[in-house]
Amino acid sequence: MSSIPAPPKSSIAEERVNPSFPVRELTYWIDGGRRVTELKERIMLELERDPLWRVNDHPNLSLAETRERAMSKIRRLADLATSRPLEETMTRMSIISVVDPGFWTRFGVHFGLFFGALQGQATPSQMAYWMDKGALSMQGITGCFGMTELGHGSNVAGLETTATLDERTDEFVVHSPTLTATKWWIGGAAHTATHCAVYAQLIVKDQCYGTKTFVVQLRDTKTFALMPGVNVGDLGKKMGRDQIDNGWIRFTHVRIPRSHMLMKHTKVTRSGDVIEPPLAQLAYGALIQGRVSMVSDSANVAKRALTIATRYASVRRQFGGSASAGASETKLIDYPIHQYRLLPLMAQTFAMIFTAREVTANYEKLMGELSDLGDATGAAADDVIKNLKETHATSAGLKAFCTWMCLNIIDQCRQSLGGHGYSAYTGLAQAYSDFAVHCTWEGDNTILTLQCGRYLVATALDARKGLPLPENLSYLRGAVSATGGLSGHACKGDSAEQVSSLDTLKSAWSSVAANAILNAVRDFEAGLGKGLSKDDAYEFSSASRLHAARMHTYTYLLHRFAAQVDQSPAALRPVLTLLAQLFGAHSAVQHSGEFLQSGFYTGSQIETLKGFVSFACSEIRKDAVSLTDAFNYTDYVVNSPLGRFDGDVYEKYFELVTSLNPAKPVPYFDSLIRPLLERTDETETGPELEIDEE
Amino acid sequence: MSSIPAPPKSSIAEERVNPSFPVRELTYWIDGGRRVTELKERIMLELERDPLWRVNDHPNLSLAETRERAMSKIRRLADLATSRPLEETMTRMSIISVVDPGFWTRFGVHFGLFFGALQGQATPSQMAYWMDKGALSMQGITGCFGMTELGHGSNVAGLETTATLDERTDEFVVHSPTLTATKWWIGGAAHTATHCAVYAQLIVKDQCYGTKTFVVQLRDTKTFALMPGVNVGDLGKKMGRDQIDNGWIRFTHVRIPRSHMLMKHTKVTRSGDVIEPPLAQLAYGALIQGRVSMVSDSANVAKRALTIATRYASVRRQFGGSASAGASETKLIDYPIHQYRLLPLMAQTFAMIFTAREVTANYEKLMGELSDLGDATGAAADDVIKNLKETHATSAGLKAFCTWMCLNIIDQCRQSLGGHGYSAYTGLAQAYSDFAVHCTWEGDNTILTLQCGRYLVATALDARKGLPLPENLSYLRGAVSATGGLSGHACKGDSAEQVSSLDTLKSAWSSVAANAILNAVRDFEAGLGKGLSKDDAYEFSSASRLHAARMHTYTYLLHRFAAQVDQSPAALRPVLTLLAQLFGAHSAVQHSGEFLQSGFYTGSQIETLKGFVSFACSEIRKDAVSLTDAFNYTDYVVNSPLGRFDGDVYEKYFELVTSLNPAKPVPYFDSLIRPLLERTDETETGPELEIDEE
Repeated sequence: MSSIPAPPKSSIAEERVNPSFPVRELTYWIDGGRRVTELKERIMLELERDPLWRVNDHPNLSLAETRERAMSKIRRLADLATSRPLEETMTRMSIISVVDPGFWTRFGVHFGLFFGALQGQATPSQMAYWMDKGALSMQGITGCFGMTELGHGSNVAGLETTATLDERTDEFVVHSPTLTATKWWIGGAAHTATHCAVYAQLIVKDQCYGTKTFVVQLRDTKTFALMPGVNVGDLGKKMGRDQIDNGWIRFTHVRIPRSHMLMKHTKVTRSGDVIEPPLAQLAYGALIQGRVSMVSDSANVAKRALTIATRYASVRRQFGGSASAGASETKLIDYPIHQYRLLPLMAQTFAMIFTAREVTANYEKLMGELSDLGDATGAAADDVIKNLKETHATSAGLKAFCTWMCLNIIDQCRQSLGGHGYSAYTGLAQAYSDFAVHCTWEGDNTILTLQCGRYLVATALDARKGLPLPENLSYLRGAVSATGGLSGHACKGDSAEQVSSLDTLKSAWSSVAANAILNAVRDFEAGLGKGLSKDDAYEFSSASRLHAARMHTYTYLLHRFAAQVDQSPAALRPVLTLLAQLFGAHSAVQHSGEFLQSGFYTGSQIETLKGFVSFACSEIRKDAVSLTDAFNYTDYVVNSPLGRFDGDVYEKYFELVTSLNPAKPVPYFDSLIRPLLERTDETETGPELEIDEE
Repeated sequence: MSSIPAPPKSSIAEERVNPSFPVRELTYWIDGGRRVTELKERIMLELERDPLWRVNDHPNLSLAETRERAMSKIRRLADLATSRPLEETMTRMSIISVVDPGFWTRFGVHFGLFFGALQGQATPSQMAYWMDKGALSMQGITGCFGMTELGHGSNVAGLETTATLDERTDEFVVHSPTLTATKWWIGGAAHTATHCAVYAQLIVKDQCYGTKTFVVQLRDTKTFALMPGVNVGDLGKKMGRDQIDNGWIRFTHVRIPRSHMLMKHTKVTRSGDVIEPPLAQLAYGALIQGRVSMVSDSANVAKRALTIATRYASVRRQFGGSASAGASETKLIDYPIHQYRLLPLMAQTFAMIFTAREVTANYEKLMGELSDLGDATGAAADDVIKNLKETHATSAGLKAFCTWMCLNIIDQCRQSLGGHGYSAYTGLAQAYSDFAVHCTWEGDNTILTLQCGRYLVATALDARKGLPLPENLSYLRGAVSATGGLSGHACKGDSAEQVSSLDTLKSAWSSVAANAILNAVRDFEAGLGKGLSKDDAYEFSSASRLHAARMHTYTYLLHRFAAQVDQSPAALRPVLTLLAQLFGAHSAVQHSGEFLQSGFYTGSQIETLKGFVSFACSEIRKDAVSLTDAFNYTDYVVNSPLGRFDGDVYEKYFELVTSLNPAKPVPYFDSLIRPLLERTDETETGPELEIDEE
């Protein structure tokens, strides 16, 4: 009954014989053009050849070694970031976010958060001052970002840290009044940062103006000694991303010049007048950028997870095969259930890839418009603000559901590796731990979904009053005027072609999303009807609001995916169409209750859709390895012996494990094991008692 | 706008003022009686007071320290295991599986797997021999369990390791013929074990008899030197459970006496005759035990996760509250969405608690019957074998869905802690990493669900032929004879009471499970109709088989939960009934498509059910902290400052983090940070070239 596995290399080679599409062309299409692909390839090669950038030994580093390794790479990258074009730096960072997400965070805290705070909130003269101090290039200053506190995360308005103007000395006094006011989770605070962008309540003449941002020096830049009144501690070990030294900070009456408050928006004059900005929404920009970048990151990380799982499934054999001795077992990828496990995730990954590209472009366009707008008001400004609100809400939903989707993809892919997924050397255990934080930072996912849902409810109510709908919510047209739901929106025809066409699926999702939003509106209004305040009515409707946000976001992903398919080169269109259909159909089957309740699909059409999902999986299975090849990650980036391009999984996995864990004598044999093995029973029975003798 | 949190201790104290049920009585009911509760309390206290058993510093130990710490506890536990009653040992191990799951595995490899293999597969004289060698008490022998190989996991029949009888010397020659035959994941092999229960293909006179078990000595018990022909290596870092030293083993023509093959079932005589056993199913017992214990483990770990998440949610405040300065923010647990996140998980946990208790009792009863049976055959034996098959299949489904359920509960609870869930000191990040292996070991979950589904299909087909249904599948009665589905099974009445009563929910789930099984039968028969072999037809129907197993298992959980509610003391019945309803209703809403397709519920009844879920959450919310109190884990077992009984989360979290990470100078300031801050730009421009001068 024993069976020798077929040679892994030929097992994977046969998968590449006859792809249904030009692989290289798909890479260009995913990346956004040949130029981008070649830039990525150049950067991947540079990283792979630089010994500083070794990553396959990460599992064996201690926390201290992990942090030091990360720090040793900062200088190289800082020099590149300031000397090379921005596009190259952004591309390098997007690759690093997959290869070494903890380092990406450590670097990003300075360049993204601290420097980003300056860019977004400093006046031109403040910006010039901090540039002159070396804030961009880390020549003199390393920054961190002091928003969250031990007792306060998502509710930024509720932060306890205060910055009180002392008019006599023209200084702010920054202070942590309680234990819960301690700044907490501050990346870079424990070991790295000289300065911190501190979020604190602005208090002037006993009046509180809400949270603003203040640059506070933490350490002497020559000696690294803590500044007076500054206490800093180390948050130690985390679930993942140990490359970044998160810390806590307490301020005890720390004095900073008034000019260290970032005053692009709110300004405080020498005489203590507070001038508030006309457009509070302008601060949204940075939030949206973070969320949009996490949609990209979700796509990029999912590409790696699927590369590992799909290639391994094309090499690993188990059960089946001919009963004769010596026959090969069946490849995992040939089992329908394994296709069903992996290939819908592949479709989700493509949905995220294309959506990420489009929302990134939209975001950049919007920021350009906002910048052109300056301080203008009027109709043009109103339009930009409306778009900003829509993008803010949509990006909130996308950030939440894409990071959840990617986290699930990582763990499903890891489980699909069987026992080997539990090894630290096969890549996905650490990927999960590193990625998980995306679901809670930069806006807790649940709170973001509720924000998105609140916007959807408000927009539906506005539309009912006759206000125009934003383009991405045009599916609400009709729905908001219909009184009894969306009659007439139903699948026309029972054939597999009719039930599963991309047009049908787009209509199906739009219809279900519209229904979900109307249900949330209904619950919100029921809350109002009970006499609840507006805020409490929103809380009352939170379950249906969250659900509406989910349905809207899936609809958005499907529509963006379909739009990219329409524009794609003809040679790619068949496989991309099938992937888009699989995304829409599989997601619909997962939420079949909604489609039945809305009346879009009948029960038998849902059965047909299930059959289509199996069919699509079996078709895409033929291209599965080629699709991972189109992702175009080098073995260095994949960083898992099970996801190697050449399929030589067992030899290389064995080599990696044995080279990182060389044979050594058992360190505690004499102290612990020998005494265990050689011990004798010593039951203390005590002396016999005279009283017992009779 | 800033707000000082209300005192955490009073926030949680007010939760305990007026529970709807007697808390202590629920503890007794969960544990199975006051005696068990008091035994658990005694053991928790013993562990907490023993310095060997400190666990709150685990995140800061290196891999080497983690393993040594674990080894240092083995002797204490081995002495207790052999000197104290079995019930106490089992109870102690069940607590340890929550407190220190990696250690539990390290200990369990010897006592559960190695010694279990002897118990299950050794003849009486073999057992006496190994007992005499010290196999129970580790006085002379420490064992490991050599089943999986680098290239073979779930398919035990396909293992490559061989054990070939050499009749001349009366020995077996154990050999790893290829790289993929290397024994892999063998817990205890790297550092601990002197002997291994090796699964290998039995080869006698050139004929292969399939995998049997052989005891092979790995190391000299006096010097710990490896035996001739034995290579052992260390698998190093894993996702979790680093307390156990998993290793790899390669055998090169290792000779062992013939009597080291465990011969309770298959026997090999001196002359090389192979005598196969009459009842191959007898080996099922050990498999079932492992699965049943993982249902208990899922319940026990989920109790801890919910204790942490629920208590923290009763202390943590965020947003809301009165707008006046200084007013408290709203407790997380008061948000409907937070109730919706946590309390269905609480209901799932109770479903697992009660199901685990019942299947454990059933398993023990069945093993008793099996043991009484001896070598008997006939009707009585057939009955036991039938029960064994049913238990084997049901336990496969339960193991898979309960471990998945628990893994999800841990991560949902972790995410509900917001950013603090990402700290290694709040408990759930490590709990996830440790628990995840339950989904792949002792039978990969997906494969187990398919086994369960195959049994369900086969049973439905048998029933159609007139064979009697096992009790847990009695809901198939009627279904197997009906030709057009289960007409007449529909919810009678539209009121919330009618839609959500426990009886309605039980019928609803039975009906949906029957439908799912019939769908799997339909797909299986469609496969046969296409001319597929029976095995291929099962593969063809794998998606619907998996689905049938899920529906059956949820139905089983609900029925077992309901049965326990019926037997519970009157004072507990209201809260337990509501929890059982929430379990059934929430799960039904999650799978609403099935209930609509089966026709059990209409769309508007599903809406009513959703309303009931929200209502049930808001009712159970009032008892939420008291329910965690009823789980009766001490702070030591909870091992998270956020899950403390007294609610003093911030002070104790701060204390723990600062005591484990005391202030130290930044270790690489001089080597890395100073050179970064003080560097100057050195752009190499090169000399001016004469040719450029014009």
